[in-house]
Amino acid sequence: MSFVRNAWYLAAWSEELPSEGWLTRRLLDRPWLLLRREDGSAAMLADRCPHRFVPLSKGRREGDRLFCGYHGLGFDMSGTCVHNPFGEPPEGARLAAPPVAERHGGLWFWAGDADKADPALIPNFAFIDQGGPIERAVYTMAVNYELIADNLLDLSHAEFLHVESFGTNGSLFSHGKQTVETDDSGSIWNKWDMTGAPPPIWAMPMLNEGDRVDQELHIRWNAPANLALFIRMAKTGAAEPMVPPMANPHILTPETETSTHYFFTHAPGEQEAAQARRVFLEEDEPMVAAQAEALAGEDFWDARPVILPSDRAAILARRRLMQMRKAEAAT
Amino acid sequence: MSFVRNAWYLAAWSEELPSEGWLTRRLLDRPWLLLRREDGSAAMLADRCPHRFVPLSKGRREGDRLFCGYHGLGFDMSGTCVHNPFGEPPEGARLAAPPVAERHGGLWFWAGDADKADPALIPNFAFIDQGGPIERAVYTMAVNYELIADNLLDLSHAEFLHVESFGTNGSLFSHGKQTVETDDSGSIWNKWDMTGAPPPIWAMPMLNEGDRVDQELHIRWNAPANLALFIRMAKTGAAEPMVPPMANPHILTPETETSTHYFFTHAPGEQEAAQARRVFLEEDEPMVAAQAEALAGEDFWDARPVILPSDRAAILARRRLMQMRKAEAAT
Amino acid sequence: MSFVRNAWYLAAWSEELPSEGWLTRRLLDRPWLLLRREDGSAAMLADRCPHRFVPLSKGRREGDRLFCGYHGLGFDMSGTCVHNPFGEPPEGARLAAPPVAERHGGLWFWAGDADKADPALIPNFAFIDQGGPIERAVYTMAVNYELIADNLLDLSHAEFLHVESFGTNGSLFSHGKQTVETDDSGSIWNKWDMTGAPPPIWAMPMLNEGDRVDQELHIRWNAPANLALFIRMAKTGAAEPMVPPMANPHILTPETETSTHYFFTHAPGEQEAAQARRVFLEEDEPMVAAQAEALAGEDFWDARPVILPSDRAAILARRRLMQMRKAEAAT
Repeated sequence: MSFVRNAWYLAAWSEELPSEGWLTRRLLDRPWLLLRREDGSAAMLADRCPHRFVPLSKGRREGDRLFCGYHGLGFDMSGTCVHNPFGEPPEGARLAAPPVAERHGGLWFWAGDADKADPALIPNFAFIDQGGPIERAVYTMAVNYELIADNLLDLSHAEFLHVESFGTNGSLFSHGKQTVETDDSGSIWNKWDMTGAPPPIWAMPMLNEGDRVDQELHIRWNAPANLALFIRMAKTGAAEPMVPPMANPHILTPETETSTHYFFTHAPGEQEAAQARRVFLEEDEPMVAAQAEALAGEDFWDARPVILPSDRAAILARRRLMQMRKAEAAT
Repeated sequence: MSFVRNAWYLAAWSEELPSEGWLTRRLLDRPWLLLRREDGSAAMLADRCPHRFVPLSKGRREGDRLFCGYHGLGFDMSGTCVHNPFGEPPEGARLAAPPVAERHGGLWFWAGDADKADPALIPNFAFIDQGGPIERAVYTMAVNYELIADNLLDLSHAEFLHVESFGTNGSLFSHGKQTVETDDSGSIWNKWDMTGAPPPIWAMPMLNEGDRVDQELHIRWNAPANLALFIRMAKTGAAEPMVPPMANPHILTPETETSTHYFFTHAPGEQEAAQARRVFLEEDEPMVAAQAEALAGEDFWDARPVILPSDRAAILARRRLMQMRKAEAAT
Repeated sequence: MSFVRNAWYLAAWSEELPSEGWLTRRLLDRPWLLLRREDGSAAMLADRCPHRFVPLSKGRREGDRLFCGYHGLGFDMSGTCVHNPFGEPPEGARLAAPPVAERHGGLWFWAGDADKADPALIPNFAFIDQGGPIERAVYTMAVNYELIADNLLDLSHAEFLHVESFGTNGSLFSHGKQTVETDDSGSIWNKWDMTGAPPPIWAMPMLNEGDRVDQELHIRWNAPANLALFIRMAKTGAAEPMVPPMANPHILTPETETSTHYFFTHAPGEQEAAQARRVFLEEDEPMVAAQAEALAGEDFWDARPVILPSDRAAILARRRLMQMRKAEAAT
């Protein structure tokens, strides 16, 4: 198994990058420095000196230069070695520096061939900063990113795993219609639509006895694992939604083959943060971690999973990644 | 290395199976649920949903049905999927369910081809419930089961490792005669007989100065690693034994390649339990664990052990397992 | 990767060997017993019984005999099995016993063909016991020995990593001249000479304002990783050194592929021991450990390091070891 290379990955939320120093983060199983130049622009450099491979983060930064703490080599923000205390900077000595773009509240990097890095290919997460106030957050889960994407692409699990948080009281079974779509942007959609369904518990105080609701639970995937969840609920027959429609990023960037940085947002406030932690860390993570443990490194397909109709979007996404890997391996 | 498949293994003592819910146990490196149907009969089912591989034990039981906690599939006690909340139960979706038989105070399972599972092949441990009151117990040792069987099949180690517990004060060397036998049931026997030997310390209060004793230390092995120890001691020349003859099961079921469930019995009482723990956990286990550590995953034969005459039974048992593995690999 | 076999390694400082019992130590990824015979001579025996592979160190010693704690086999100090409680000692049963020589305050062993073990090939560390009083010490670092040798063979790192302990205030850059030499004894030398340089801080109280100094920082390597550091400082123009020249062993013996016994000396006293610990454990080890972690098992050359002129001696040493390994693999 290898990571898809020619794709945009989210490295960090913008506010995670300090104005001085750096943020260190493992991404696609390599160590990186995420930092802001003195002019405020973002940079991403390998946290690994090309001389003796020690982390630059064990050295120091002076303005827009980084100095290795072992033998003193100095690098500029393009990754070029520009200083050798014992003579000329060695030719060809550089820190890897992938193309980056700051967009939708975060720093994205392109992990493959630099000449293919078109920022127009960054999936559309414009909604992140277009709604009301939110908090951006990131967790690191000890699970492979494809297993987490599977989880998100089949939201029917909410009826079992999230009964008390955002389960729909069974209306997914009784009133749900599932539609899987793909579009030209490379997105894969899994849409659950519930029409004339009994309301979830949290909505009851806003409704009269016997009122029914129409709900949308739509999730969008873009390779490698950049997902967005769209939720809408209206009183059946009403044109306007009962509460403002919600759009949430669920952006997964592999830390390693077996761990994932999970970028998401939640409404501001400690209670909302705690609710998000509960859903992700106490409901989802133990289950997908148990799945990873059960597979114990075996390939998902080799384990011969039973496929349900509700898996269709997840299967499409897995196939898309396999095609991308195959194409990259062939070049 | 692989586990022998066409053989009966002990999964649990009968009293370990709860009347509601289940016992989870790793056996032959797979996760299992051990449970009783509502009619009291025992069942053994894979603790792994065939859909997304998560443990069923993270779900719930309703009567004789198990429901997965991730996407709600339901299974009956034969392992067949009988419920899908989103439509028809998927064809071919089942939990592995090996043949089981409850016998000699425990639940046995057949790990190979179901059509070969003949309960008559379960080794004879009828003595477990035919003697006086006993307690049945199980430890899990972090050692491969064949190394533990080696230990039991060469009881001469008692003179060194169990000097203070059931060592025989050297009479194994001075008066011992070793006989190795095989029989039609597939058993391998290693019999130490000591005739006219000085008594062990614990027996002295029952004897007169100068009395001699005849002791039998017989151990029986049946594949894969189901052992029974028979001890008898009589005053030399006397027809009747001094104390009731003892028969003890030492039944080893692999948890993984490198750990083993060790089923045994001891006389009732906290002191007797503590004595058993001392012998197994403080005397035997550190030694066989040191052996496993020294081998560090190297195959036993590749390490080219020096063979002593006292190893004969252990070598026969190892060869028998190799033949069984070879035969199973060929089919 | 494999260890060089036909070479002398330091197993222990002489005073580490107890007069009774033994010292256990893992060397070249095997367990050993280091002990003194009753006549005071040193012996080295495999800590692994050839019968069932358990450590002899779980048994007992009687005079010049070792008895296994599992089944009682006894061995003499040549490693020959001389006792079997159940009969004749088995033929060919022996503990590995490499050639050893006690020299320069320590016990050296030859890891390869015994007939090539010429004590004249032990590198010259006569200085260890010819200077003033010292304390001999050993640390175990969780790093491959070649990475530690690299560190020592390129002392330019002192200007960055040891700024506060024995850095030379930049005079290595400004006044340093590097010479790499090899000689007939198999040594590789990396010599830094600083002429007319400003003095290091610790030397200032001994000098007048404006005085300059000549410093030598010479390190000598002998395969596999037996290093010696020689330091000399004189007032520029003076014939005699300001302080007695220092010579220090830095002798590296692999514990495993990823850990190393680091033998060194320091001036007597708790403060001096603490200073050595600080330099080795707080300055050097975290950096070389970070290097090992960055390589994550990848071969040093496969990682394609940028080579600086200051690496020349380290590269020569690495090449010498590769040649030795290749020659040993060919025989």
